[in-house]
Amino acid sequence: MSSTTMTSINDRILTVLPLFYVGWSDSVLSPSEMKMIRSVISEMDFLEADDKKYLSSWTDPTNPPPEEVFRGWMRAIKEKATKLDASERKSLVDLGLQIGSVGVANPKDSDATRSALQRLEKELGIDNPMSADLLLSHINKKDKGSYNTSFSSEALKDVLDGDYKEVKERMRHLLRDPIFELKHEADKDIYRLRILEQVKALAAQGVSGYSFPKKYGGGERHGDHIAVFEMLSYSDLSLTIKFGVQFGLFGGAVYLLGTEVHHRKYLEAMHRADLLGCFAMTETGHGSNVKGLHTTATYDSKTDEIVVHSPNPAAGKEYIGNALHSEMAAVFAQLIVDGENHGVHAILVPLRGEGGQHLPGIKVEDCGYKMGLNGVDNGRIWFDQVRVPRENLLNKYGDIDTQGKYSSPIKNPSKRFFTMLGALVVGRICVGLGSLSAAKKALTIASRYALHRRQFGPSDKGPETFIMDYPTHMERIIPAVAKTYAYDFALHDLAEMQVNDDGTDTRKIETLAAGLKSKATWHATHTIQTCREACGGKGYLQENQITDLKADSDIFTTFEGDNTVLMQLVAKGVLTEFKQSFHDDGSMAVIKFLLRKANYKISEYNLLHKRNTDYKHLTSFDFIKETFDYRYEKSLIKLSERMRKYLSRKMDPYQAFLKTQVHMIDVADAYIDVVTLRSFYHKIHNSPEDMKPILSRLYTLYGLDTILANKGWFLENEYMEGAKSKAIRKVRTKIIQDLRPDLHGLVSAFGIPDELIAAPIAFSEFS
Amino acid sequence: MSSTTMTSINDRILTVLPLFYVGWSDSVLSPSEMKMIRSVISEMDFLEADDKKYLSSWTDPTNPPPEEVFRGWMRAIKEKATKLDASERKSLVDLGLQIGSVGVANPKDSDATRSALQRLEKELGIDNPMSADLLLSHINKKDKGSYNTSFSSEALKDVLDGDYKEVKERMRHLLRDPIFELKHEADKDIYRLRILEQVKALAAQGVSGYSFPKKYGGGERHGDHIAVFEMLSYSDLSLTIKFGVQFGLFGGAVYLLGTEVHHRKYLEAMHRADLLGCFAMTETGHGSNVKGLHTTATYDSKTDEIVVHSPNPAAGKEYIGNALHSEMAAVFAQLIVDGENHGVHAILVPLRGEGGQHLPGIKVEDCGYKMGLNGVDNGRIWFDQVRVPRENLLNKYGDIDTQGKYSSPIKNPSKRFFTMLGALVVGRICVGLGSLSAAKKALTIASRYALHRRQFGPSDKGPETFIMDYPTHMERIIPAVAKTYAYDFALHDLAEMQVNDDGTDTRKIETLAAGLKSKATWHATHTIQTCREACGGKGYLQENQITDLKADSDIFTTFEGDNTVLMQLVAKGVLTEFKQSFHDDGSMAVIKFLLRKANYKISEYNLLHKRNTDYKHLTSFDFIKETFDYRYEKSLIKLSERMRKYLSRKMDPYQAFLKTQVHMIDVADAYIDVVTLRSFYHKIHNSPEDMKPILSRLYTLYGLDTILANKGWFLENEYMEGAKSKAIRKVRTKIIQDLRPDLHGLVSAFGIPDELIAAPIAFSEFS
Repeated sequence: MSSTTMTSINDRILTVLPLFYVGWSDSVLSPSEMKMIRSVISEMDFLEADDKKYLSSWTDPTNPPPEEVFRGWMRAIKEKATKLDASERKSLVDLGLQIGSVGVANPKDSDATRSALQRLEKELGIDNPMSADLLLSHINKKDKGSYNTSFSSEALKDVLDGDYKEVKERMRHLLRDPIFELKHEADKDIYRLRILEQVKALAAQGVSGYSFPKKYGGGERHGDHIAVFEMLSYSDLSLTIKFGVQFGLFGGAVYLLGTEVHHRKYLEAMHRADLLGCFAMTETGHGSNVKGLHTTATYDSKTDEIVVHSPNPAAGKEYIGNALHSEMAAVFAQLIVDGENHGVHAILVPLRGEGGQHLPGIKVEDCGYKMGLNGVDNGRIWFDQVRVPRENLLNKYGDIDTQGKYSSPIKNPSKRFFTMLGALVVGRICVGLGSLSAAKKALTIASRYALHRRQFGPSDKGPETFIMDYPTHMERIIPAVAKTYAYDFALHDLAEMQVNDDGTDTRKIETLAAGLKSKATWHATHTIQTCREACGGKGYLQENQITDLKADSDIFTTFEGDNTVLMQLVAKGVLTEFKQSFHDDGSMAVIKFLLRKANYKISEYNLLHKRNTDYKHLTSFDFIKETFDYRYEKSLIKLSERMRKYLSRKMDPYQAFLKTQVHMIDVADAYIDVVTLRSFYHKIHNSPEDMKPILSRLYTLYGLDTILANKGWFLENEYMEGAKSKAIRKVRTKIIQDLRPDLHGLVSAFGIPDELIAAPIAFSEFS
Repeated sequence: MSSTTMTSINDRILTVLPLFYVGWSDSVLSPSEMKMIRSVISEMDFLEADDKKYLSSWTDPTNPPPEEVFRGWMRAIKEKATKLDASERKSLVDLGLQIGSVGVANPKDSDATRSALQRLEKELGIDNPMSADLLLSHINKKDKGSYNTSFSSEALKDVLDGDYKEVKERMRHLLRDPIFELKHEADKDIYRLRILEQVKALAAQGVSGYSFPKKYGGGERHGDHIAVFEMLSYSDLSLTIKFGVQFGLFGGAVYLLGTEVHHRKYLEAMHRADLLGCFAMTETGHGSNVKGLHTTATYDSKTDEIVVHSPNPAAGKEYIGNALHSEMAAVFAQLIVDGENHGVHAILVPLRGEGGQHLPGIKVEDCGYKMGLNGVDNGRIWFDQVRVPRENLLNKYGDIDTQGKYSSPIKNPSKRFFTMLGALVVGRICVGLGSLSAAKKALTIASRYALHRRQFGPSDKGPETFIMDYPTHMERIIPAVAKTYAYDFALHDLAEMQVNDDGTDTRKIETLAAGLKSKATWHATHTIQTCREACGGKGYLQENQITDLKADSDIFTTFEGDNTVLMQLVAKGVLTEFKQSFHDDGSMAVIKFLLRKANYKISEYNLLHKRNTDYKHLTSFDFIKETFDYRYEKSLIKLSERMRKYLSRKMDPYQAFLKTQVHMIDVADAYIDVVTLRSFYHKIHNSPEDMKPILSRLYTLYGLDTILANKGWFLENEYMEGAKSKAIRKVRTKIIQDLRPDLHGLVSAFGIPDELIAAPIAFSEFS
């Protein structure tokens, strides 16, 4: 978008541009000053008529340079200025003369030119070092990476991209295409069609097939699929979710729950987006408790068909993404064969006929407007005795043979169902990463705004202070950046574990996915809210993107598993050391396990540390790690003791669970913190040497921040004394301030293309 | 909406309705059961043909009774059933026979009828006490207030309504009118016109003039104006804000900053909404720091005019509500007379000519879509040398005489400006109360949903558990309800103080308004978010209202003063014991005050209390009050010591402020907590005896919840030991559980008309 603007900027114009830039960026130009500028320009004889016209056109206060023009100036100046020595740019006049003459045979540094520029500089009141600094600081920043960061943000981006740099760069490139431009669309029906087109465009690029077998045109690169989802979350989240529904949920159901016959028939058409489908699991009456779904799929041996049916209104499928555009649904229903209910299975049910009309017995209703994600067509679906061939049963974990007999490799119906659900765990990892991408974007926008937005200051006369320099502002933004890095590393470790799982780690992966999805999405919701507030009124305008990030990602905390429910599953997983079937909500298994075992142990705890307020100690890897471990182990032991106590009093296990529910969440929280910290530690260990200092600082901040968030618990349990928690607060504050100059680099390393940041406040140099 | 449905329900139908109701509400009716029902119905000879037709029409599972029908049934049953003795409704059959015969001369309790009903009951599998209970519990609830609460929710509503019951009831009645129906409108331009019509409808009702003098058609009842705003916030918040801009901000500027000449000319037309206006203060470049506005208003003695001008793009007025519909603006600008800048003053600037076109020099731009409040036309306005007569200066605090001389009753320009701002403090009180209304509505919706929504349960067979019965759910909702009551009382006390202020309490009122506005709006933002998550996917659908509450009220934390900035002002107010001019951002005044005085004192502190974990002690008014006071006093003393230390080291005062900024927020927070608790205490003291138990329980919960939220601080400062904070947690949990049966009554007392609750999930009896 800046190319047209750039073409008109020649070296002659460049000579004057530094003065123009600073004049506008300080927003100090009065109309009389503008008039004076025009007069000086008209006298500058090195300028040609067109140049004068161009410059004069930007001297009208009612027609200020739009942001892209302004940024174009900055870029043009930077481009030339970075080639100069510092000595050649000690004032705006010097800078102008130098960049204007770079590569020009006959330098224009005549006395007349210099004096005209100096007159301009003086009249504008910018013949002082501060004004020059404003511009020069931008240039200097460019010199050493971004904004004087202590590290290369490109190198840090590589650390974040990890093994998926290639596919991530491909996605970044792809998403810069105008077809993916972020544009507000108030009408949901129009918006949905646009998103559908974008989904098809992605399919046409082949990025929708990474998780499927090569023989069906796929890529067999599961990790790449996750990376695609993560990058897509920098674009319109409606696109991300519609993509996830079509290729992850619907595609995943066909691929992971179906067998060869389904793969052959549907996989390729599905990932090419020729066959649109949905994942019809949730019902109005049953969301979290999917085992209790009411939809029935009854095998009719007379016709060798399966009859799919919604027995009551609340058994209607609800919130189903892609429902209105879909031709087919993977319907989760109680499979009844010969009068016996074998539990929930998935059945492919065509929704539309050849002409596109809905088939008899299918009723689809629009869920209407939502807080966000209005580019996704969520709907409700009811089935009235809909008949499909027996083969439409996705039969990997449960089949009906030609004799009408049901069989399954997994005998226990509950275990069977949760095995099916487990096959879809990758969705939770994707949602966690998607929410982080949204948080990264909000942090990028809020940070970049706060790095140029000024308000208040030491005096009424001088320049105001950058809002990023207020401690309260640093408190809001910088710890959230550190935590975002922490969850990034933990989720990527989990993704690798999942991609490489041969079945050994399945239960642990399910536990971690539930926990990290919950913690990451809550973190994102909280962070985006903070960023909205940190940008004030600007943050409330749609054009600045944070509102959409907020509205679109808000559902992440409750879909693909409600966080509160998931955190309880995490606690159950931990209590049974991952030996219990994951989703199983039966409390008895945990109880039995608890009564049998009691081998949790608590780390060696050094009492001397209670009062140790030494800076080195507080910022050491060991202290932070031990403190995280202690909280987890102690709260786990307390929880299991509490449960045992209730059980020994013959309390009904369900009641015992209710009574300890809040404590279970605490244990789950502490556990996921331990896992997250561990990933962070390993990431530092495996990073290039020059990345270790910045990563270590982020690690320390994340660690101390988390410890302080739980300081009440640590003090209550006498793990530390008040003097120590106070010392930790001081150290944390110091690290936040130390990270302040690195902030721009830290958010740049997220690698979000400017086109997807889109928010004017992230670019504006004058506001 | 139920009236059409109701007409078809006669006494014969009523006889069968209890069975129908429970059948559907359990969502257990299979098609075969439906068939059976039809057959039994056809045999019931007391039913007429039309009755049979009606009943049969609701036996088709693909055509379930919509919610309004279902609710109509409930209402019809309740209406009759409440007149019965408990003995007459011990089963669904008894109930049906009784309500069907009420007022009928010839009771239909023949053996044939009874046995047909019993057959139906048995076949449906609802011939058990549990099924009858489901329905009967609803009826019983209605009998004793709502949901078996321990108090009358009507009486509690009276406590909340206080002295403003009459105007509040008037508003509740008015807002039930179909013209105020909550309807989603995606297109902002259409939406804005609807809101404009609603504003005019309110003006036509005369509720827009309460704060203006009688001689200009007003009501001279300032408190009523605040009550109107509070009730309006139960309706569409776009309406609330547009109303607030027109009558509170624009009207307030004319009334409070202008003099007789302006009042005579504009007040009546303004509050009748014949003259639409806006409040043009904020600029793109200056929001929080309004003293630094760039717009100029230069007096031209030659023509006796004031020239209003935006000297640069960032000096454009921004986010101005009502900007697109306004004919006039109260423009805040630096008033320059004879070359001297007298600081910011307000000037009335006509924006449109007779024909409605914008006047020369006026440029208005739409701010576009926002996160919410899209029914409000926020815009940007630039002025290019716009000339208005000298008389357009709102001249109460600064005037230009016929000789062109400036004069003001307040010599110090800074003090003068902040006196003007202070006149508008009522806006902050209104915003605080408006945010509470939004929180109340979200809590009402989430509570009512959780009281009928079931998920999971002790076994796969029996009924699932109401989600409100999960401790994690109680934790989310019930403390938020208590805190909402607390802020309600505190804000109403403040409103009274403001309404009755004769100038004595002005500084304190400004401080309290800043602090309570901040705490209440943050509380609302947090609570509405919690309610969204607590309602899962249903909470994400626009139809259930929470999404609009979230999006619309989100800006409250940063408009009418950014909360973080306001909280610092609170701290400054406290540090100077309200002797310093409020908004003044000059740190020096505080510093001087601090160096002069050191008379903060800490309450007598009883060391014995450190370990006292006695239930009575922990729930006592005294313990809670002392603990709040201690936190405030101790943190205030620490802050002033910290500042003195920096200053004694000759640190620059601005730097000293930055270094203590985070601590200032802590002090402000503790102070507002103390104030809030005090209001709560007084409210209980002044309430009817039968209200004291429930109010005391809420007080205790609010108190202990706040103490626990700061337990890290209390432990760190050795105010209590770990054993005590653990005991407080237990007590808090117990109180939450004790309040669980009262929850429905607690939210009912907010008195939000059903038409404004609007969310289907707050009514649905089967989901």
